[in-house]
Amino acid sequence: MFVVKVGGGAGIDYEVFLNDLVRHRDYLLVHGGSHELNMLSTRLGVPPVFVTSVSGFTSRFTDRRTLEIFNMVYAGKQNKLLVEKLQALGVNAIGLSGLDGRLLEGRRKRALKIRRGDKKVVLRGDYSGTIEQVNADLLRLLLNHGYTPVICPPAISHEGVAINVDGDRCAAQIAVALQAETLLLLSNVPGLLRDLDDETSLIREIPRAELDRFMEEVAQGRMKKKLLGAKEALDGNVARVIIGDARGPAPVTGALCSGTGTVIER
Amino acid sequence: MFVVKVGGGAGIDYEVFLNDLVRHRDYLLVHGGSHELNMLSTRLGVPPVFVTSVSGFTSRFTDRRTLEIFNMVYAGKQNKLLVEKLQALGVNAIGLSGLDGRLLEGRRKRALKIRRGDKKVVLRGDYSGTIEQVNADLLRLLLNHGYTPVICPPAISHEGVAINVDGDRCAAQIAVALQAETLLLLSNVPGLLRDLDDETSLIREIPRAELDRFMEEVAQGRMKKKLLGAKEALDGNVARVIIGDARGPAPVTGALCSGTGTVIER
Repeated sequence: MFVVKVGGGAGIDYEVFLNDLVRHRDYLLVHGGSHELNMLSTRLGVPPVFVTSVSGFTSRFTDRRTLEIFNMVYAGKQNKLLVEKLQALGVNAIGLSGLDGRLLEGRRKRALKIRRGDKKVVLRGDYSGTIEQVNADLLRLLLNHGYTPVICPPAISHEGVAINVDGDRCAAQIAVALQAETLLLLSNVPGLLRDLDDETSLIREIPRAELDRFMEEVAQGRMKKKLLGAKEALDGNVARVIIGDARGPAPVTGALCSGTGTVIER
Repeated sequence: MFVVKVGGGAGIDYEVFLNDLVRHRDYLLVHGGSHELNMLSTRLGVPPVFVTSVSGFTSRFTDRRTLEIFNMVYAGKQNKLLVEKLQALGVNAIGLSGLDGRLLEGRRKRALKIRRGDKKVVLRGDYSGTIEQVNADLLRLLLNHGYTPVICPPAISHEGVAINVDGDRCAAQIAVALQAETLLLLSNVPGLLRDLDDETSLIREIPRAELDRFMEEVAQGRMKKKLLGAKEALDGNVARVIIGDARGPAPVTGALCSGTGTVIER
């Protein structure tokens, strides 16, 4: 089986993506919603704030009001849109956030250590964290009864509070928990690029032993997290991770069958 | 077991409601979100439109844009808020819309016949309908594995399109499908009132044989649908329906154990 994460960036045609996805069997879908969230939160007077941690990873500052809008976009609009479209294509999809059945449980980071210019600053009031446990029993229960889970953040803290978690790493954790063979991380870029401004500078393969170096030296912004997710998946026994393009006429088939994108194998 | 529907009207304190709910066992929660939906859709430039059918029932005109905001409020904000709070109270809640696993399947009404002043008008472009089938297997699967379903509209049409359905009737259909003993329809009114402006004019009991008459002669607006839901539940073998208040310190215990509200028995 495989786990596919489809990003929430601009330019992805979900209709085309899903039409290709349903040609395959035995998968589980994880999705994002960042572009829609940015638009809606701006419209509602809570414009997005991104911060860079001292270790160089970028993330969304998620206060309680942002989390509420996050739920509306991820678990409401995007999740139900994908479930509806899959149902219309004959797939018995069930949408779940990480809160549901404690599907994705983790630790809330109470304080974010971030860089602001040259300074290090501690930021409080953030609702985000890291997944430590996936309720694989719930996923297996649904899969065994013919349902296809469609999953999105937020996760839930051990205390029962919603926390924003990275979608790519969330997909990686799920792939590990289910011992999936392949993890596809598809978004609105062709894969890891040597030159961000040149889509032809795609790196077709990353040797497993050099993943850390690529994460530090080549990847920027969101791509750093994708490589971290890839690393976590491979460490957890997933055989293959492909970071690829969710655009184009056959994004899933291309990545899965032809390795289109950046491939990292165990 | 019992099914409880908590309305989405103004003035309901979900914290208090859930604190009381979790004192009980073997229940399933259905919720609304109308007040939040009215606020958000107005804010997003799609103010709510309510229409009255030729048979006298009031409903929301739900075009595709409204449906999208509907999903954000019901399946996103409200559902995940309730799931999160239940999880924090130690209940392993799972939130589901009627789309998920085709939980609530029905027929889309392609055209609405409504009254506009003295005229009868046919309205198109509405995404709403009536539930014809509940996926009771899915609910039993989750209940048998220790999960508590938290359910909201929309439902899904036979063609796989999201349709707005009435929340009270949705709760009634679920109660019938699971052969629940009691159905509680709790909202921000004490029950069926003889005089809408006088909360002390509560009708404590409706004889089963007179339900139709009360629906036609006494109930107004939303209350008509609640009585229709009650009728459908009783016709489907549910022993008792209580239309009660979701406000107050112990709304579930009051209705369930003392029959606070309007009681209709089979």
